[in-house]
Amino acid sequence: MRKYNLGIDIGGTSIKIGLFDIDGNLLEVFTLKTNLRDHGRYILFEIASLIKKKVDFQEIKAIGFGVPGPVANNIVYSCVNLGWGRKDIASEFKEIIKDDEILIKVANDANLAAAGEIYKGVASGYSNCFMVTLGTGIGSGVIVAGRVVDGINGVAGEIGHIHVDDDYNLSCNCGKSGCLETVSSATGIVRLANEYLKKSDKPSMLRKFPYFSAKKVIDLAKSGDELAFEIIDKAMNYLGQALAKVSYVINPDIFIIGGGVSNAGDFIVNLITKHYYPLVKPFINHTNFAIATLGNDAGMFGACYLVK
Amino acid sequence: MRKYNLGIDIGGTSIKIGLFDIDGNLLEVFTLKTNLRDHGRYILFEIASLIKKKVDFQEIKAIGFGVPGPVANNIVYSCVNLGWGRKDIASEFKEIIKDDEILIKVANDANLAAAGEIYKGVASGYSNCFMVTLGTGIGSGVIVAGRVVDGINGVAGEIGHIHVDDDYNLSCNCGKSGCLETVSSATGIVRLANEYLKKSDKPSMLRKFPYFSAKKVIDLAKSGDELAFEIIDKAMNYLGQALAKVSYVINPDIFIIGGGVSNAGDFIVNLITKHYYPLVKPFINHTNFAIATLGNDAGMFGACYLVK
Repeated sequence: MRKYNLGIDIGGTSIKIGLFDIDGNLLEVFTLKTNLRDHGRYILFEIASLIKKKVDFQEIKAIGFGVPGPVANNIVYSCVNLGWGRKDIASEFKEIIKDDEILIKVANDANLAAAGEIYKGVASGYSNCFMVTLGTGIGSGVIVAGRVVDGINGVAGEIGHIHVDDDYNLSCNCGKSGCLETVSSATGIVRLANEYLKKSDKPSMLRKFPYFSAKKVIDLAKSGDELAFEIIDKAMNYLGQALAKVSYVINPDIFIIGGGVSNAGDFIVNLITKHYYPLVKPFINHTNFAIATLGNDAGMFGACYLVK
Repeated sequence: MRKYNLGIDIGGTSIKIGLFDIDGNLLEVFTLKTNLRDHGRYILFEIASLIKKKVDFQEIKAIGFGVPGPVANNIVYSCVNLGWGRKDIASEFKEIIKDDEILIKVANDANLAAAGEIYKGVASGYSNCFMVTLGTGIGSGVIVAGRVVDGINGVAGEIGHIHVDDDYNLSCNCGKSGCLETVSSATGIVRLANEYLKKSDKPSMLRKFPYFSAKKVIDLAKSGDELAFEIIDKAMNYLGQALAKVSYVINPDIFIIGGGVSNAGDFIVNLITKHYYPLVKPFINHTNFAIATLGNDAGMFGACYLVK
């Protein structure tokens, strides 16, 4: 009898496999290191083989996969970090496990993080949400009417590449410049800080460190360092601008802030909303903002949500 | 037997009532002038009374209403042009016609125009689309997975108020400045043209007219007037920027351009895409763009789509 679902989050370093019962309760988590050899060609085989050791495939009803790259209509366009180009995971995995009846769905991991937070996290009960993950880059995920939105090119929720900054116009990995990611991600905050340190004479504890992290900038800002505060305020100004634009497109019930930068909690949320509201009034007087609660498990829960 | 649906588009000047069979074929259109007296309190009664003269309410299965204002969860927030504040059309109309079994849904008219184009217009066959209507203001509508997206405050698809312009920073009806509407709507094009005429010495036929329309600017641009071309190019640059942002949020299958300005056809689409693609590459190499085909009937078709 098919009584389990699996939510699988494939990352560039490790893979998390969540075993869920049909009601969506997490029963067990299996992890394995991501095998990047030969353009990641062993990844799906190793996932199948690990699962086989733990559960009978005959008992699995559906599998959701989250991958670090654009996905549209269940087809992966590319996952640079895994070495994958275009890939039909659903067909390949069914072939590997010799099971044609299993339901397999695939989506982008940032979109699934949003789905996870709706399913079992801070956005539980909401059906329209936008999640932004401030880490090395900026990931974001879109849920409308309870459904994960991929976009025709798998680019829905890629607000990291919205152009926001003409002042510093820092170059982005995508080949353009001035993208949100260049100023508001953890990496972006550090880049922005270095620009501020160059152009300003203001004293700051930051000047004592040859290298520093976004967390250091945030901690100093919290503790009263004026220049550090200006930097974080500016970074969150850019993010507030971008989220205002998101609201004019889908007007979500809730924004979820995740990733390393979100550890700063209300301090960050208050800065974002300070810049967000003047841009959306008088149309919007209140939007929910919340810090993500599922951390690295969000993708796994979201992958399960995808097939529930 | 309930064998008809109605799609009703309530505008500030007139109301269009489309009688559809259950398969969505338009059988007949009834129109009436919008009675704005006493804060529009007679509007629903007059609609009911006109329908009653034409069809037996017992034969109507469902009614979709489109209104010129924000709607969320079937409740109108306000329709300034009609004199309406918060209004539960579905309950009021059921009360008026003494029929509790009829299905009634309500949505914003710009969102329904998008739905109409998906249902019976240029976007037929697509399920994710974003429509922008360039008229006196800028209306826009969002369809994701075939569903009309309202947004929690009814503000989904209000890209007319995305901030795009820091150069001219023209004041907007919404109380802010630099909104897309101030530079890319028909009215906005004229405002932008007047700014260009003031700041530039370039000769232009536009200088011969004390007043001119957006159509005049477009016609002159098409016929080789350099300054007129610069103005339209700039207006469509702003629009291209806004649509790039829309793509990073929902990555629609197709953008539909409607409203008076869209009568310029490919000329306008080519200018928009010229500014759009550099902002979305390398993530998006192709997006469909099309000129709306249903004109003022789009809302009526969309209202029927809402309840089909």
